[in-house]
Amino acid sequence: MLNVANIVDRLREIMDDESVNQLRDEMNSYHVADLADIFQELKPEERLQCFKVLNVDKAADLVEYLPPQMQVELLGDIDEEVASRIINKLPHDAAADVLGDMEEDESETYLDKLPQKFSEEVRELLAYNEDTAGGLMNPAVITVNVGMSVQDVLNGIRQRAQEDNMELYYIYVTDKQSHLLGVLSLRKLLTSPVSAKVEDIMTTDIVKLHVDDYNDFIVDEFMKYQYNALPVVDLYNRLKGMVTWDDVHDLFEEETTEEIYQSSGISTEAIDEDEILTGNLINAVRARTPWLFITLIGEFLAVQVSNHFNHTVAALPLVAVFMPLLAGLGGNIGTQSITLMVRGLSTGELTLNSAFHHILRECAVGLLIGTIFGLIVAGVTFGWQHNIELGVVVGVAMTINMTMATVIGTLTPFGLKAINVDPAIASGPLIATTIDVIGLTIYFTLVSTFLVKTFV
Amino acid sequence: MLNVANIVDRLREIMDDESVNQLRDEMNSYHVADLADIFQELKPEERLQCFKVLNVDKAADLVEYLPPQMQVELLGDIDEEVASRIINKLPHDAAADVLGDMEEDESETYLDKLPQKFSEEVRELLAYNEDTAGGLMNPAVITVNVGMSVQDVLNGIRQRAQEDNMELYYIYVTDKQSHLLGVLSLRKLLTSPVSAKVEDIMTTDIVKLHVDDYNDFIVDEFMKYQYNALPVVDLYNRLKGMVTWDDVHDLFEEETTEEIYQSSGISTEAIDEDEILTGNLINAVRARTPWLFITLIGEFLAVQVSNHFNHTVAALPLVAVFMPLLAGLGGNIGTQSITLMVRGLSTGELTLNSAFHHILRECAVGLLIGTIFGLIVAGVTFGWQHNIELGVVVGVAMTINMTMATVIGTLTPFGLKAINVDPAIASGPLIATTIDVIGLTIYFTLVSTFLVKTFV
Repeated sequence: MLNVANIVDRLREIMDDESVNQLRDEMNSYHVADLADIFQELKPEERLQCFKVLNVDKAADLVEYLPPQMQVELLGDIDEEVASRIINKLPHDAAADVLGDMEEDESETYLDKLPQKFSEEVRELLAYNEDTAGGLMNPAVITVNVGMSVQDVLNGIRQRAQEDNMELYYIYVTDKQSHLLGVLSLRKLLTSPVSAKVEDIMTTDIVKLHVDDYNDFIVDEFMKYQYNALPVVDLYNRLKGMVTWDDVHDLFEEETTEEIYQSSGISTEAIDEDEILTGNLINAVRARTPWLFITLIGEFLAVQVSNHFNHTVAALPLVAVFMPLLAGLGGNIGTQSITLMVRGLSTGELTLNSAFHHILRECAVGLLIGTIFGLIVAGVTFGWQHNIELGVVVGVAMTINMTMATVIGTLTPFGLKAINVDPAIASGPLIATTIDVIGLTIYFTLVSTFLVKTFV
Repeated sequence: MLNVANIVDRLREIMDDESVNQLRDEMNSYHVADLADIFQELKPEERLQCFKVLNVDKAADLVEYLPPQMQVELLGDIDEEVASRIINKLPHDAAADVLGDMEEDESETYLDKLPQKFSEEVRELLAYNEDTAGGLMNPAVITVNVGMSVQDVLNGIRQRAQEDNMELYYIYVTDKQSHLLGVLSLRKLLTSPVSAKVEDIMTTDIVKLHVDDYNDFIVDEFMKYQYNALPVVDLYNRLKGMVTWDDVHDLFEEETTEEIYQSSGISTEAIDEDEILTGNLINAVRARTPWLFITLIGEFLAVQVSNHFNHTVAALPLVAVFMPLLAGLGGNIGTQSITLMVRGLSTGELTLNSAFHHILRECAVGLLIGTIFGLIVAGVTFGWQHNIELGVVVGVAMTINMTMATVIGTLTPFGLKAINVDPAIASGPLIATTIDVIGLTIYFTLVSTFLVKTFV
């Protein structure tokens, strides 16, 4: 394991000594993925100093590993000529990402400086929606035609060796109009006789993406088919580029973050999830308030329920103290059920076909746990207040409450899925509030029916 | 998009017609990743019928995409000879996974039937802990030595074309004692002159795994360095195998599931997360009760707090009805903060260095949202009860409660991280309970200080 803190300390010492050569040797000796971790820990001005001593190839490699904000910050602060040489070394998709995050006049300056072909291809990428395969793909792919032999293909690849921005995963077979006809894996290429014809060894059952496919679909396709790269075609099946696994990597992490955020009622629709954590305060507030408002409305309902039984509380104030206990455990076990169902539906481990089985199963789990906790609560309450009726009522309320919470937590995600709504929006807050309202109604009904009458 | 439900209906019709040839054609025409989705929807006996018509190569491909339970079920139900031919077609790591999930006498039967070399290598894999690189790796890698030329390597690969179980990502360079000396990417191999020597074009800065490295470390390394495969070495740097991205795929999904489960207080330490969703009921109960018990203890504390202010409630029963409102919103906003911090620390977007900044930021967010909600609650309460003191007390309690909840939700994950405890265990339930206890104390103190005195 790399000790980032130690390295940062050493780098700071070298910077204090102003020994540029030592800093250059040190910086160029790390893997760019490690450098990205190190940069995360440096102050902006230290980052700039360290970035300047990197050679152009290493700097370009590193840029791909940095978060967007840092990319723009560093490239904006160094000499424009150097920045443009670094951008020129990036794969097209990475270059488009970097330029897309800059102010328009800044990115135009760089686009004008770049070689014409590269600049045109990057402009084409910038025209696609950045949340689609078009915005994600690298247009620089190796294409061959059906008539070529394995030896021709190998020679062709060797000739293109100089092009730094070329990624090599699969060889795509196209006709003269760029229509995608087949895919050739490097494995197949390397294990077939050199005289074999491309058309005889290519795969024609092609899993492909369309330029307009959205990120979440792309992630699903990669997770399902487990390829390292997928070709991207337009409406007419013309090959436009390739999306590679490392692009999907980051998307996958983003999708997961969105799923986790949604589960605790942080809305990611209007606000980018980077913004919520580190952007301006107003965006953070905007992302967090919608579900809080829904909770507020729901809890006012809970207030009305409690208020409806105000005479019960007045007659026996002690019953009020059990409210947080019931709400807390109901909310907790209900959230567990939603989490299990939402995640199961998201990974595909659960499907609507098995809904009935899982609803029954969760009911059983809820009833089992509810009974255990009901007994404990009844026992503790009796031991504390020496009132058997109170113990029984609180215990029974606990059992019903927890069972009901698991049922709601299980039914809601399946219900949403059945009407084609993303179950992830069945977020914890909404369900917790529903459980509060129903749970309190049950509790106070029990109390006023069985308890207050015996007392008053 | 594939319409799985339609395909399943068609397959059922074909099976009803008992036209085996049509079923064979239909089944063998799908991509194995699609077949895996289809199998998920079929009943066990239908699954078996469909599996039997697949040719051996396709069946072996499919097995890799199926969940462990289904692998064992299908291979156990078909003819033993066929099953053993399918297993023989699997990559070593997949074969070890399948055999590892079987009963020992069953797996021994297959191991005896397999070719000796394959069987020995699989036995070696079975000896590693399945949660480590040793248990995950494929030992069949292509190795070359430093003195070879590119042409030699290409010829070598072509000669090994017949070995189905060989995966091709990187070429590893070793000495005669199998010590790992360098790595050669296929890209480098294909773009270098055929006469170039391996030692001149190989990379010697090698990112590698150790046989004893655990799954979570492996996932982190893959996410960080973004390679498609990493070599695995033993204590003496001898090459033992290779872990590929598609192995890590599933691990990554598992790790994410664990993170999500933990956040809602489902414990994944003793029970495998597959078991929680679909295994026996007792395991589901065992995974879910530990944090519920902690909630129970915490909420009994909340009960004590409320009970301590019993005279206040007796004097003014109305104040009790606001308890769920305060607890609900405090819990909700607090959970948002924990979720943001735990996820940020997990993806590396947040570090301890930036803790102070984020704690301040979250305090500001909490105070801002708390003030908005405090004002609303004060207004609504006043409008409802026409009691200005009550409105002010409930509103102020709401503001303090929500601010306090964000602070606790932010401090706890950073605090745990600082003492080297996984912040993911700062799970929602624990914090929600803490917030309940502190929030009720603040509320009842405000009520008894400012409100009940004016009334009584």
